[in-house]
Amino acid sequence: MTELRRDPITGRWVIINAQQENHLLDLRPVDHDGDEEHCPFCEGHEDQTSAEICALRPEGSKPNAPGWYVRCIPNINPVLTVNSDLGRRGVGLFDMMNNVGVHEVIIESPDHRKDYHDYGPAQMKRILAAYRERIVELKKNQHLKYVLVFKNHGKRAGSLHIAHAHSQVIATPVVPIRLKMELAGTRKYFQMKERCIFCDVIRQELKDEVRVVEQNDGFLTLVPFASRFPYECAILPKRHMARYEDIEEKELDDLSDIFQRTFHRLHQILHDPAYNCVLHDAPNTVPKKGAWKTIGKDYHWHFEIIPRTMRTAGFEWGTGFHINPMAPEKAAEDLKSVDLSE
Amino acid sequence: MTELRRDPITGRWVIINAQQENHLLDLRPVDHDGDEEHCPFCEGHEDQTSAEICALRPEGSKPNAPGWYVRCIPNINPVLTVNSDLGRRGVGLFDMMNNVGVHEVIIESPDHRKDYHDYGPAQMKRILAAYRERIVELKKNQHLKYVLVFKNHGKRAGSLHIAHAHSQVIATPVVPIRLKMELAGTRKYFQMKERCIFCDVIRQELKDEVRVVEQNDGFLTLVPFASRFPYECAILPKRHMARYEDIEEKELDDLSDIFQRTFHRLHQILHDPAYNCVLHDAPNTVPKKGAWKTIGKDYHWHFEIIPRTMRTAGFEWGTGFHINPMAPEKAAEDLKSVDLSE
Repeated sequence: MTELRRDPITGRWVIINAQQENHLLDLRPVDHDGDEEHCPFCEGHEDQTSAEICALRPEGSKPNAPGWYVRCIPNINPVLTVNSDLGRRGVGLFDMMNNVGVHEVIIESPDHRKDYHDYGPAQMKRILAAYRERIVELKKNQHLKYVLVFKNHGKRAGSLHIAHAHSQVIATPVVPIRLKMELAGTRKYFQMKERCIFCDVIRQELKDEVRVVEQNDGFLTLVPFASRFPYECAILPKRHMARYEDIEEKELDDLSDIFQRTFHRLHQILHDPAYNCVLHDAPNTVPKKGAWKTIGKDYHWHFEIIPRTMRTAGFEWGTGFHINPMAPEKAAEDLKSVDLSE
Repeated sequence: MTELRRDPITGRWVIINAQQENHLLDLRPVDHDGDEEHCPFCEGHEDQTSAEICALRPEGSKPNAPGWYVRCIPNINPVLTVNSDLGRRGVGLFDMMNNVGVHEVIIESPDHRKDYHDYGPAQMKRILAAYRERIVELKKNQHLKYVLVFKNHGKRAGSLHIAHAHSQVIATPVVPIRLKMELAGTRKYFQMKERCIFCDVIRQELKDEVRVVEQNDGFLTLVPFASRFPYECAILPKRHMARYEDIEEKELDDLSDIFQRTFHRLHQILHDPAYNCVLHDAPNTVPKKGAWKTIGKDYHWHFEIIPRTMRTAGFEWGTGFHINPMAPEKAAEDLKSVDLSE
């Protein structure tokens, strides 16, 4: 099967070329650094990191000391820093500004060897709650237009330094262009139909069933219709919700459940793959403004998960044109078939 | 130095984080397959490929036999094929179409061991002329909206199968999204200023000098102001020209010269790097239409060259947001300093 598919949100076309399904996949497992003794993210090594910004701890436990569940610290090599003004300026034709922003690390657990695919439900929920907490906090700064929460797992996915499971938070004074494209696409659809396109996609995917990996009361995991990569997944709330930070307690339980199960599936089928996981959230627009009113109705947050199974990424950088060697329906079927008792 | 820079054409922001200039670079040389005996692209092995679509040969030389300079053949595993109708259709919300298109390979030389960086000027010119010839031919088919000419050099850049130097041509019924973004950006600027933004950028870069690697009568090589990757380069014609295929003979000489020199520089400084080189050309719009008239004035073809020196590519896929660990001015300086007599 070979066909061209259009992503309904951004309008990007992808060639699905499912003739060569497996020979392109890179199934090397992630290279784990077992050296817990020198890991600054392990419990008991709190003095080896910068002082924590915040942490989830049982009552009575002291900051920057053992006994925490999740810790948030400043990135030691931040790509953006808080200590300067925006300094927006033109240089002839060109526009630039200072590297204003925030770069934080969320240490996901005290345990060096645990990760998304094998956290217990309580720990998974704490991590997802920590994301919410950092977003709420950082969006108070109106200079910061976007809060990016993401995780690079494995060297091939860009995790260069420390093997101990961690997520990153980057808050920027600009909205990333992929998000801008999504926002433009959702706005256009809303103007035409007065409905959220993600809600419509979810409705259709639940009816079609062929690309849904699983669902619970609040969420579903699916393989997007115009996936760029094999086993690319998205996790979306069923309820229309523009901002991740509006998630409620019961929903956080459902999300923890499906999130952990989705990564368990990927882990089983791809044997501990390298991956990128990125939260696509609404930008930090002032609620009073007209623009926000629309975004509140037409945008719909979700996680995007990209296993790094392609040996290479070629001319995609130059063109935005992707060739996916695996049919999304096949990927969904494979993921569904995983025995989660293993 | 860390700052945020905006690409003037697409509006994409990049973090230039030049504190960590070198430790992120992957300088492993390309893994050359020296097995000329079994290489189907070598001279004398013409019977091991499909019959040639066309070739540059000295007069009197026979098709599909030795004695050629440049050969164009169908890709043996095409991602698109000519033998079907477009079959545009909706599946609920989703849009798809058949894999209509063309996928060709241009074997750049009979010599297994030569490449962009060390072709003589005559051979380099033949290759660039072959690109022109294929574009002119393929644009006659009005179903094909875009002709992509590109080269993946080295496994890390997506060249999976054959080490013998070759380029690829993919003609598609849709315009790739990166190009759409460029076209939208150039149109917006033209509507505002009635000038081509690329022409304005060239004028400013030639004045500023800090990002120009070199120039000759017809062309210049520069490191873009908001480069996404270390040593990313662009080669642009100084004369306003929307379509590559409008290049004239004298210009083809100038282009051959600067093209070969640019790759020579990259080869010296990065020790035979893996790279992607993509021609950004105007889409295949009917000249009579109003749209074409505008594109003719506001678009400006160019080559984009991306050395694959980043050990990783992380959350960039999810966000379109890039962190470049090297200042473009430093990259330009390094490239300028290369001794081309080596």
